[in-house]
Amino acid sequence: MAASSIRFGPGVTAEVGMDFRNLGVRRVALVTDATLRALRPVEVAVAALERERVRYAVYADVRVEPGEGSIKHAVSWAKAEQPDAFLAVGGGSVMDTAKLMNLYTCYPSASFLDFVNKPLGGGRPIDKPLKPLICVPTTAGTGSETTGTAIFDLAGKRAKTGVAHRALKPLLGICDPLNTRTMPSAVHASSGLDVLCHSLESWTAIPYHERVPRPTNPILRPAYQGANPISDIFSLQALRATVKYLPRAVRDPDDAEAQSQMLLAATLAGVGFGNAGVHLCHGMSYPISSQNPARYHHPGYVVPHPIIPHGVSVAVTAPAVFRFTGPSNPDRHLAAAEIFGVDIANVKSESAGEVLSEALSEFLVKLGDQPRGLKALGFSEGDVDGLVEGTIPQRRVLMLAPNLASEEEAEKGREQLRGLFLDAMEY
Amino acid sequence: MAASSIRFGPGVTAEVGMDFRNLGVRRVALVTDATLRALRPVEVAVAALERERVRYAVYADVRVEPGEGSIKHAVSWAKAEQPDAFLAVGGGSVMDTAKLMNLYTCYPSASFLDFVNKPLGGGRPIDKPLKPLICVPTTAGTGSETTGTAIFDLAGKRAKTGVAHRALKPLLGICDPLNTRTMPSAVHASSGLDVLCHSLESWTAIPYHERVPRPTNPILRPAYQGANPISDIFSLQALRATVKYLPRAVRDPDDAEAQSQMLLAATLAGVGFGNAGVHLCHGMSYPISSQNPARYHHPGYVVPHPIIPHGVSVAVTAPAVFRFTGPSNPDRHLAAAEIFGVDIANVKSESAGEVLSEALSEFLVKLGDQPRGLKALGFSEGDVDGLVEGTIPQRRVLMLAPNLASEEEAEKGREQLRGLFLDAMEY
Ligand SMILES: NC(=O)c1ccc[n+]([C@@H]2O[C@H](COP(=O)([O-])OP(=O)(O)OC[C@H]3O[C@@H](n4cnc5c(N)ncnc54)[C@H](O)[C@@H]3O)[C@@H](O)[C@H]2O)c1
Ligand SMILES: NC(=O)c1ccc[n+]([C@@H]2O[C@H](COP(=O)([O-])OP(=O)(O)OC[C@H]3O[C@@H](n4cnc5c(N)ncnc54)[C@H](O)[C@@H]3O)[C@@H](O)[C@H]2O)c1
Ligand SMILES: [Fe+2]
Ligand SMILES: [Fe+2]
Repeated sequence: MAASSIRFGPGVTAEVGMDFRNLGVRRVALVTDATLRALRPVEVAVAALERERVRYAVYADVRVEPGEGSIKHAVSWAKAEQPDAFLAVGGGSVMDTAKLMNLYTCYPSASFLDFVNKPLGGGRPIDKPLKPLICVPTTAGTGSETTGTAIFDLAGKRAKTGVAHRALKPLLGICDPLNTRTMPSAVHASSGLDVLCHSLESWTAIPYHERVPRPTNPILRPAYQGANPISDIFSLQALRATVKYLPRAVRDPDDAEAQSQMLLAATLAGVGFGNAGVHLCHGMSYPISSQNPARYHHPGYVVPHPIIPHGVSVAVTAPAVFRFTGPSNPDRHLAAAEIFGVDIANVKSESAGEVLSEALSEFLVKLGDQPRGLKALGFSEGDVDGLVEGTIPQRRVLMLAPNLASEEEAEKGREQLRGLFLDAMEY
Repeated sequence: MAASSIRFGPGVTAEVGMDFRNLGVRRVALVTDATLRALRPVEVAVAALERERVRYAVYADVRVEPGEGSIKHAVSWAKAEQPDAFLAVGGGSVMDTAKLMNLYTCYPSASFLDFVNKPLGGGRPIDKPLKPLICVPTTAGTGSETTGTAIFDLAGKRAKTGVAHRALKPLLGICDPLNTRTMPSAVHASSGLDVLCHSLESWTAIPYHERVPRPTNPILRPAYQGANPISDIFSLQALRATVKYLPRAVRDPDDAEAQSQMLLAATLAGVGFGNAGVHLCHGMSYPISSQNPARYHHPGYVVPHPIIPHGVSVAVTAPAVFRFTGPSNPDRHLAAAEIFGVDIANVKSESAGEVLSEALSEFLVKLGDQPRGLKALGFSEGDVDGLVEGTIPQRRVLMLAPNLASEEEAEKGREQLRGLFLDAMEY
């Protein structure tokens, strides 16, 4: 497994000018969104570039939860600017957009769907190094500063999808806990729930030695390898930290320790799931966020469009998902439940999924302001077939889902997903 | 922090031919030692190269615990062979020798001491990428497959030293638990004690935010950064695994689970200490191994020369070292003692060092066949001044030692080291 470089510590953002100087970069594209444009993380990054006399151009039009249209807009800006390197200052929306700006500027004649994951896109591998990208996360969530993944909404397909390849990995992630302090409490919560699901899903993903098909050559291994002894360490540690610190970070905007620990947890979970993979919560979240039939707008998100934030969309099915996956590996589900504080001494292994599911529901309810199921987001039973159809193409993650029928048994898999969405209507 | 790529799993050695093919390598130098030459790990690696028609030349003259002379011999072989890449199959002795073969073949006109750590050598930074090196560890010890360090004995200086630079990091570590099965029990024990000290020293090293001097530019940061939240995770996990599995791996040559867990622990500890650093056990071990005044030959080591194996030389001072460092961070010392099974509920923080020291002594005694102090290795009080003089130049690691006087207070530092060596005479 390979990890990007990570630099962690309060104040490290101020070094980013020197990093670009050391790389011999002359002109940087600073990518951010409209909210962050006016906040401290961008201010510090800009000052760092100016101090080292690195030229830069700012793109602040990133869409929160990017879509095909916003990505294309960003790419055409980058193609005109022709920067030597990219600097993303923001949450997953900003980092993912910057990754794609980099990709399509390096492949100017590629068509948009070429690199997008199969079967929605062509799944073309990236066969050359891209320009240097440095990521400065401002949420404690996606771990995108460590991964080779970029996610966006392909509205025509009624689901999110993305590009996933090692070559998209940032050169360096600068994790500075001073940068997450201004997050609204709602963003703390939903980005933290993303960390929770990254860690739980990677911990319970199919183990690396059971993933099929086995590649004939190590170069053909997917980035998502299945749970393995190294990813386990990252995932469990991130889970422990999230259970302990997320409630504090959401409750108290001045709890610097909790914020710092959550930023670290997000990065660790990123390394964990970036190698092991995620599965059902993520696979099912892509149509949930994309379809949003009731034009739900999550309270606390200051954006000009309806939004089911990514973290909300993954957590909302988690109680149903881990009830379903429990039988695949009761020990791991019990170990997770124990981290939530459940006394597992007398729990039977048949109940492992149920027990973890209950611990999760309780955690979500106590965290506050979370929709208690898909109904609260405006979905009804009539939406389930559409959700299932939007999940089926998420092969890249579904192949890591324990207990799910294989592609060959398509009808059984559909039935299982239908059951999961129905179960997720209310918890 | 940056990590090398690691591939872990039984049987993965057989893939190494494809790895070189994927890299477009035509001719590999396979580096190993005389014992391993005849054993399974080399056999499997050779078959893998042949299957993929990758040409190779074998160098099997690595000295166990290399010295200046054996390194120079290996380098001149490599200069004559001019391979495109290196494949190390062996323990730390083999991997470190291969790193230096690679270095000096890429800098053919450099003089031997140029790159060696200051003040014994010139400390010249490596300013270009070296040839690809793939490491296949056959001991569960050094973690050298993940680090940018190569250690050898500079007999003229009466201490081990080495070269340390990120560019020495192997491209890939292939960690295959089938390769450590043939280790003699004595090698299991001493390489495992190396893991124990890597994890304990990196866990207790000066924290990254206290290390001085602070570099003015991130590129000037040393590879050894001090203990940090990411290295902590690796180090603690390695410590837990070592305490649990090393006694089993030493006792039972058929305990495949314990062996596999120890190989993983060695790699994890390598990532931990490769980023955080080691300190006193290692700094003091370099003159111990080098000076060996009584020509001690550790039982179970099949080598034609006297040897205080690296793992033995680091563990022998550990009870004295952690008694000394205890006051710098009682919480961390207690957390470590707890991993050894000590009930720390009622331990006062003043006793943290003592309690960890006792837990360590007990662990070493129970492990069996370990010298109970420097006396048992043939050192006497008259040797202490020489040992101190051999330790002083180990700045790279001493600067991470908690509680030790700084370079400016040279006399105080000498006095502390003298005290440590005397305390280490017997435990
Ligand atoms: N690439 C990956 O590996 C990966 C993994 C998970 C999720 N994602 C994607 O990332 C996106 C979600 O990213 P996110 O959760 O980090 O949030 P985000 O980037 O969508 O930002 C959410 C909101 O918070 C604001 N914000 C962010 N940081 C702030 C700060 N410090 N102070 C004040 N406001 C701040 C933003 O302006 C925005 O309004 C989704 O599109 C999701 O699909 C990607
Ligand atoms: N580079 C680093 O980061 C680093 C860290 C710690 C130690 N070291 C160095 O590594 C060296 C010690 O390495 P080590 O402890 O791995 O041992 P080693 O390489 O010195 O080998 C010890 C003995 O075990 C034998 N052996 C190894 N694997 C075997 C197997 N699978 N089956 C049978 N016999 C086997 C060897 O032939 C040798 O006789 C020292 O020189 C030490 O200074 C380097
Ligand atoms: Fe996510
Ligand atoms: Fe060592």
